[in-house]
Amino acid sequence: MQTVGIVGASGYSGEVLLEILSKHPGVGKLVVASRSYKGKRVDSVLPRLTGLVGDLEFVEADPEALSLEPVDVWFLALPHGIAAKYALNLVNAGRIVIDLSADFRLNSPELYEQYYDQPHPAAEWLEKVPYVLPELSGEDWKRSQLIACPGCYPTSILMPLIPLMREGIISVETGIVINAMSGVSGAGKKESLFYSYCERSESALAYGLGTHRHISEIEEQLGLAAGHPVVVQFTPHLVPMMRGIATTIVVPEKVDLESVYGIWQKTFNGRSGVGILPTGKTPDTRNVTGRNRVDFSAFMDDRTGNLIITSAEDNLVKGASGQAVQIMNLRLGMPEFDGLS
Amino acid sequence: MQTVGIVGASGYSGEVLLEILSKHPGVGKLVVASRSYKGKRVDSVLPRLTGLVGDLEFVEADPEALSLEPVDVWFLALPHGIAAKYALNLVNAGRIVIDLSADFRLNSPELYEQYYDQPHPAAEWLEKVPYVLPELSGEDWKRSQLIACPGCYPTSILMPLIPLMREGIISVETGIVINAMSGVSGAGKKESLFYSYCERSESALAYGLGTHRHISEIEEQLGLAAGHPVVVQFTPHLVPMMRGIATTIVVPEKVDLESVYGIWQKTFNGRSGVGILPTGKTPDTRNVTGRNRVDFSAFMDDRTGNLIITSAEDNLVKGASGQAVQIMNLRLGMPEFDGLS
Amino acid sequence: MQTVGIVGASGYSGEVLLEILSKHPGVGKLVVASRSYKGKRVDSVLPRLTGLVGDLEFVEADPEALSLEPVDVWFLALPHGIAAKYALNLVNAGRIVIDLSADFRLNSPELYEQYYDQPHPAAEWLEKVPYVLPELSGEDWKRSQLIACPGCYPTSILMPLIPLMREGIISVETGIVINAMSGVSGAGKKESLFYSYCERSESALAYGLGTHRHISEIEEQLGLAAGHPVVVQFTPHLVPMMRGIATTIVVPEKVDLESVYGIWQKTFNGRSGVGILPTGKTPDTRNVTGRNRVDFSAFMDDRTGNLIITSAEDNLVKGASGQAVQIMNLRLGMPEFDGLS
Amino acid sequence: MQTVGIVGASGYSGEVLLEILSKHPGVGKLVVASRSYKGKRVDSVLPRLTGLVGDLEFVEADPEALSLEPVDVWFLALPHGIAAKYALNLVNAGRIVIDLSADFRLNSPELYEQYYDQPHPAAEWLEKVPYVLPELSGEDWKRSQLIACPGCYPTSILMPLIPLMREGIISVETGIVINAMSGVSGAGKKESLFYSYCERSESALAYGLGTHRHISEIEEQLGLAAGHPVVVQFTPHLVPMMRGIATTIVVPEKVDLESVYGIWQKTFNGRSGVGILPTGKTPDTRNVTGRNRVDFSAFMDDRTGNLIITSAEDNLVKGASGQAVQIMNLRLGMPEFDGLS
Repeated sequence: MQTVGIVGASGYSGEVLLEILSKHPGVGKLVVASRSYKGKRVDSVLPRLTGLVGDLEFVEADPEALSLEPVDVWFLALPHGIAAKYALNLVNAGRIVIDLSADFRLNSPELYEQYYDQPHPAAEWLEKVPYVLPELSGEDWKRSQLIACPGCYPTSILMPLIPLMREGIISVETGIVINAMSGVSGAGKKESLFYSYCERSESALAYGLGTHRHISEIEEQLGLAAGHPVVVQFTPHLVPMMRGIATTIVVPEKVDLESVYGIWQKTFNGRSGVGILPTGKTPDTRNVTGRNRVDFSAFMDDRTGNLIITSAEDNLVKGASGQAVQIMNLRLGMPEFDGLS
Repeated sequence: MQTVGIVGASGYSGEVLLEILSKHPGVGKLVVASRSYKGKRVDSVLPRLTGLVGDLEFVEADPEALSLEPVDVWFLALPHGIAAKYALNLVNAGRIVIDLSADFRLNSPELYEQYYDQPHPAAEWLEKVPYVLPELSGEDWKRSQLIACPGCYPTSILMPLIPLMREGIISVETGIVINAMSGVSGAGKKESLFYSYCERSESALAYGLGTHRHISEIEEQLGLAAGHPVVVQFTPHLVPMMRGIATTIVVPEKVDLESVYGIWQKTFNGRSGVGILPTGKTPDTRNVTGRNRVDFSAFMDDRTGNLIITSAEDNLVKGASGQAVQIMNLRLGMPEFDGLS
Repeated sequence: MQTVGIVGASGYSGEVLLEILSKHPGVGKLVVASRSYKGKRVDSVLPRLTGLVGDLEFVEADPEALSLEPVDVWFLALPHGIAAKYALNLVNAGRIVIDLSADFRLNSPELYEQYYDQPHPAAEWLEKVPYVLPELSGEDWKRSQLIACPGCYPTSILMPLIPLMREGIISVETGIVINAMSGVSGAGKKESLFYSYCERSESALAYGLGTHRHISEIEEQLGLAAGHPVVVQFTPHLVPMMRGIATTIVVPEKVDLESVYGIWQKTFNGRSGVGILPTGKTPDTRNVTGRNRVDFSAFMDDRTGNLIITSAEDNLVKGASGQAVQIMNLRLGMPEFDGLS
Repeated sequence: MQTVGIVGASGYSGEVLLEILSKHPGVGKLVVASRSYKGKRVDSVLPRLTGLVGDLEFVEADPEALSLEPVDVWFLALPHGIAAKYALNLVNAGRIVIDLSADFRLNSPELYEQYYDQPHPAAEWLEKVPYVLPELSGEDWKRSQLIACPGCYPTSILMPLIPLMREGIISVETGIVINAMSGVSGAGKKESLFYSYCERSESALAYGLGTHRHISEIEEQLGLAAGHPVVVQFTPHLVPMMRGIATTIVVPEKVDLESVYGIWQKTFNGRSGVGILPTGKTPDTRNVTGRNRVDFSAFMDDRTGNLIITSAEDNLVKGASGQAVQIMNLRLGMPEFDGLS
């Protein structure tokens, strides 16, 4: 039985992570650290977890102190810029660290600085830390002590695209247009007028035009898959729901749909983190809420010559905490979907 | 004071139309016909209209009988395929008809048949009936007896694009990618499991890939504006809200943003049916709910070389009934925004 | 044409008030004061008002300065405790003041202190300021310079109950149980985690058990109507909608339903601020959204011997700003529902 | 490992039941019968179950045929009136049957006929079939072959009230007023305009005044607990959420709050199907969504002399399928909360 720690468990993805781990057959003791709630019972702060976490209390989120805890794996559910310091302390103390933040997702320090508006705090680590989409990232990363989890939007985009780019079915360098719609939990747990019920109900809008930070990891990963730079137009949108991301990808390239489905079948081969829908059937976020699965399908529009891929996932599960647990399972040699079905 | 009739007033856009007309300073008597509710009081079927329509009752929706009513202008809020028959009867009886259906929006009978899966019932009329976006359609149409109102999605797309295409600022023939998110009222008032509260809450999904009927009128109108055929990739999405459409248009073309805004200012010149937002500010459906206005803004993504236009409207008002009343006002020589502020 | 001022226009009821007044045929110039937005264009802070308020700007909300403005009527859409100071300054300067806050709703300073946790800042005024439900408050108040508007919950409760208590149809002193469900806008425009979209969606809960401040005005007004003290059990609830209040009142008393309806018909006599529904038909908040109307009906449960009254209103319109404008209309001798249909 | 069958798995509570059973450690084979979907894969009809139910297919819902299946326990998730026929066939074939419908909840055939508008199809069974709230129903029922599960509203009401009535802390015979707010899934999976997204969003309303069928089982059970007849005023309401019931119970009786909490602690003794909140803290449906738990708390309003109990549950879990599985666990001698944490 593994002892597992979480720093930053009081946010939405932290809460989901804690719920999954509390039911996980291979997880024993839990240690949860919070910068705001030290000494409080977890279920008083997160009442949805009542009965799942016993009388567990938050401990102080001090990087030095945490590195002394006898924890096998740490999850960091922290904002970017803050996670790095914890990650390095814990790794130096010999722990395995699975980082849900953006701090180690990129290879390039320049790209980090460009998109995150600050120099990377530990640039020498960037090349070394694997960015893991479990269904696509092979085996080598399983020896790493520090692992970067993909962002929520990127998971919905990279899962269907990477296999097709690796095989060269999609070969364009520019022209891919990606629109995604996210539930409000994607913005985190915030005291904010903008994210209040009255402001977000009956509202749909685009945001972050041309500048959303996830563009950096989407393009870096697509470039690695394709073997050449890939530039995408990514536009996120906010819609009135709590959870979920639905993504529509337009690729200006004629492809053979059978090949697309063939590559997907071969790549994912029935692994439960992926649902492949037949052409013409579009995935719906409500079918994947609470599931560690991204659904997608492909449609070839012969009239326009564009391939359209649509995908859907729960941003807090396959887009964050579920995938992080899937990574833990593989890293520790446990069954991949333990705790995730 | 005008006598105004509506056929099909019991749906969502019909209800909004009736509400606008009931408060309109230039409208006197109302005649409302319904295929389902003959003899019933309007406010018993549409309780939101209580106090606005007095004891008005639905009359039978028989085309012959209606053509004898002393009505100055008829609005048709009927499904496509059904509207045409009413339109011709009423026009032949000397009435002005403003058709909210798709029956006379296209010029080409072939296009109609291709997208609507049936031969057009009165193909010889298609070329003659103007498709009117009041801010963009000039003056000639004001002599027509039968006028086609644009669809909800097309209004959100054509309003910002047509002026830029007319001026040649946008000149691409292919490659434009349009994604739109609609509230559920866009599907009409339906007894349907798919549109039930439990199925649509916490749900976002794409639909109608490559085949949505509005593609036909979008492309026909853009082609007329550009002077050459234009092919677009249009993908509609359904999100959990009652009203509203938010649209994101990606145009693969470097443009000068000042020119874009200059043309928009000149074209729309402060008319209240349009809200032009500064670059970087994205329109939000909740700001236009209940308003006869489409908001839009432009953003030039220098990194990708794409122009991004985002727009928002109330699908039932500027996307349907509000715009129809704006057309009536102009057609009858009343102030353009009477009843619409 | 009247010149009308609003202090506190940037909240939800202030925004609705501004919208109503901007379309009101008897209102000319508007002056809007805000404690946070001095010098900003109103439509930049409240984009839903674009096109309705021209280039109107917020002025500073200084009570002295405002009392020099040539304004005929001031509306105060301010928190309790703050409104009083403005009210007295403006009244002393000879203005008419319609106060939407709770500061002058009660007659009793003791009751104010008990429910509002502070001594009343101008206790000597309490007896003098009328509490006005326009359909029920007679004529005398129309000479007052300072008028208190009822709260949102009380309006939904007092409108059906007061006539029945005045006539003695309902005579119980205790035992009335009132439950109400409110949309989130009732809490105001707040930077708050509790009122965030993610926390309020898929949530229904009771709050303020036994202590809600509206209890004081409900009981004081019912006591005046009945001629004896009335104690009620009032429990408010929060449900996932933006606007609306639905209220269920259980009165432990056998009554003759015909008499109930007879008294209501006689009292309200077709005035448009009230919708009387037949027994068995329960009012729905969605039918009164945006309307200055409270709908209600009565049901006699012969099995239990209880009378059940259910009501619904828009908390921002009949429960706040619409009713305030109705009061203004009557106070200034304009048609009662000008600007409100 | 048990073989478990479900008749009527395609509705909302059936889907939740299937999800719980598919993850249950003590459940092996599943047999699912549907009156509409014979021969279809379950995950094609209920896509949320993809990956949980393998390639399971619906079999025909023929009572005779089903009684031949080697199934240990059958769940009936069928409408009342239809369940009885299945129940008797399966019981006669020696199976254990857990009925989620209302068909065997009452003891009295007269009460059944009065509330369900038809004579009971097997009146002689009514007295024999236990109505089981697992935390409150003792041990005798565990020998029954046919067991009735409580309705969703009654569970939220009876769980806190029964212990207090048994102990005589609450002794009133009349005067209890119960208001409950339910999410839309409570109405079932329906093709219906009334339950469509557009009609139910932004809507709160009371329904079923004085006549809701759950009144019969609430009063019968309270009467058994109290030892004398109890008459309640129960009013259900519909609010815009998918899942959840929040209930507010007003009891016109002065009680000692310490005794209330003492009895609850003793009765429920930490069992995970119940969450006891401190006085003043009101339960929120969103904290129990997906949980097999009903949260409640008590508040003594000294001013009015009323005891107020508020409760919250997930209508599909503790209010239906979760509780049914809890019953199965106990009936078969498995750990009570297997599959339910």
